Amino acid sequence: MQRLSSSLKEQSKKIGLVPTMGFLHEGHLSLIGIAKKNSDVVVVSIFVNPTQFGSNEDYNGYPRDLARDKKLLEKREVDILFIPRLKDMYPNGYTTYVEVEKLSRVLCGKSRPIHFRGVTTIVAKLFNIVRPDIAVFGEKDAQQAIIIKRMVKDLNFPVKIITGPTIREQDGLAVSSRNTYLSEAERKDAPVLHQALLLAKNLIEKGETDVNKIVSSIKKLIQKKKSAKIDYISIVRKDTLKPVSRIQGEVLIALAVRFGEARLIDNITIKGGIKA
Amino acid sequence: MQRLSSSLKEQSKKIGLVPTMGFLHEGHLSLIGIAKKNSDVVVVSIFVNPTQFGSNEDYNGYPRDLARDKKLLEKREVDILFIPRLKDMYPNGYTTYVEVEKLSRVLCGKSRPIHFRGVTTIVAKLFNIVRPDIAVFGEKDAQQAIIIKRMVKDLNFPVKIITGPTIREQDGLAVSSRNTYLSEAERKDAPVLHQALLLAKNLIEKGETDVNKIVSSIKKLIQKKKSAKIDYISIVRKDTLKPVSRIQGEVLIALAVRFGEARLIDNITIKGGIKA
Repeated sequence: MQRLSSSLKEQSKKIGLVPTMGFLHEGHLSLIGIAKKNSDVVVVSIFVNPTQFGSNEDYNGYPRDLARDKKLLEKREVDILFIPRLKDMYPNGYTTYVEVEKLSRVLCGKSRPIHFRGVTTIVAKLFNIVRPDIAVFGEKDAQQAIIIKRMVKDLNFPVKIITGPTIREQDGLAVSSRNTYLSEAERKDAPVLHQALLLAKNLIEKGETDVNKIVSSIKKLIQKKKSAKIDYISIVRKDTLKPVSRIQGEVLIALAVRFGEARLIDNITIKGGIKA
Repeated sequence: MQRLSSSLKEQSKKIGLVPTMGFLHEGHLSLIGIAKKNSDVVVVSIFVNPTQFGSNEDYNGYPRDLARDKKLLEKREVDILFIPRLKDMYPNGYTTYVEVEKLSRVLCGKSRPIHFRGVTTIVAKLFNIVRPDIAVFGEKDAQQAIIIKRMVKDLNFPVKIITGPTIREQDGLAVSSRNTYLSEAERKDAPVLHQALLLAKNLIEKGETDVNKIVSSIKKLIQKKKSAKIDYISIVRKDTLKPVSRIQGEVLIALAVRFGEARLIDNITIKGGIKA
């Protein structure tokens, strides 16, 4: 892959990368569409990255279906599918990690302490192997996109990060590989995440600036669903991920909620600044 | 610099990087000679990197003489001198670090816990900015060279690391910017480091394989010098930096000793395997 990228670069081809863990869905496909518009050669990587899963998490059970993925990518005329092997990515004696320290221990980082270190490490590796000019990430993983942008800036990677909007089912549930973990009953409850975010947006648009009041309204709505177990609901500054007490400037409302085996995340970005 | 490197790469020029903290000496100049032989365009960077100095260390007092450095580099016909500014390398909100975990906490890493994390971080940044095909490091900093090779392998940097031999004064003292810290008396004592390494080499060549005996002979020799305060003397496997009890295969004998304000390091690599 590195040799191939080198030769593409010598031909002045613009390389676009969409890193994935496979089990592709409409969300990934929309990112591929963005990559196609912004580059000459699109590389999609599929690698279920062990270093971003905690020891109590779903690495082994993470859904995989390479045959189906390949068909989807062929249909979209993706140029290069890169499927590195585990032993090539993490050979014996592997011991190097990239960490975006401050941003990796808040929100999802609280309950998943090594997660973002694993993400930034594998993304740094993929950037060095594929050497993309642009790379596309989904806004559903808002914290991930913010952390990767910070890594690119801090470590001077010559890569432009583009984000693509969250793709949703008809009922508002954000499309995710982990939705396959949901039972029928949980699947019926899960759209409450999006409804909760829309409720917050509505409150803010009506002039509410008190973060505690907004969070407590969201909480009440989600807790009406029996299968929902809230991990966190946070309203933070979008650049620093630091909690805010009043809505002002650009804020990120992010949440993570468990439904049985599935831990689902969702978020919304809101421009505040409406006079209260 | 990034734009310049991009354009050099489009011209298929091979870029060689020699990263330095300035106050150049014969050691640096020999590395530049190696870079010239192995690339089309030589970039020397000068940046006294704050993240590799502990809070109790000599960042502010580290010797600097840019005018002299520039003259030396002009004389050697170095193509590009890259002097990044502190605020560009570590802008507000900077929070990303690269760490080669296992290899960074032994030897020098014991008394300088954040040192190698700072080194690998700045080298990763320089690699992304300069995008060299080869980079040259000195063997005097043996642990540093080993850690950087591991980082390059683990993070898949498309860079070949070349090391250059330690350059020594007539009396055997390894050339170092920090030698300027030595008083006249300390300067007279300091060559004992090299003598101690040669003593170890001699013992091993005569068939000694017991690491404790070798270390104790080195220690006795160094302790004869009044100004010497030993930080560590270690005999380790060169690839893993793990302590060995018997000399076998390729071993690194590394030491750090304080003489007044100066903490000096030196090392020797020995191929063992002589029948005891």
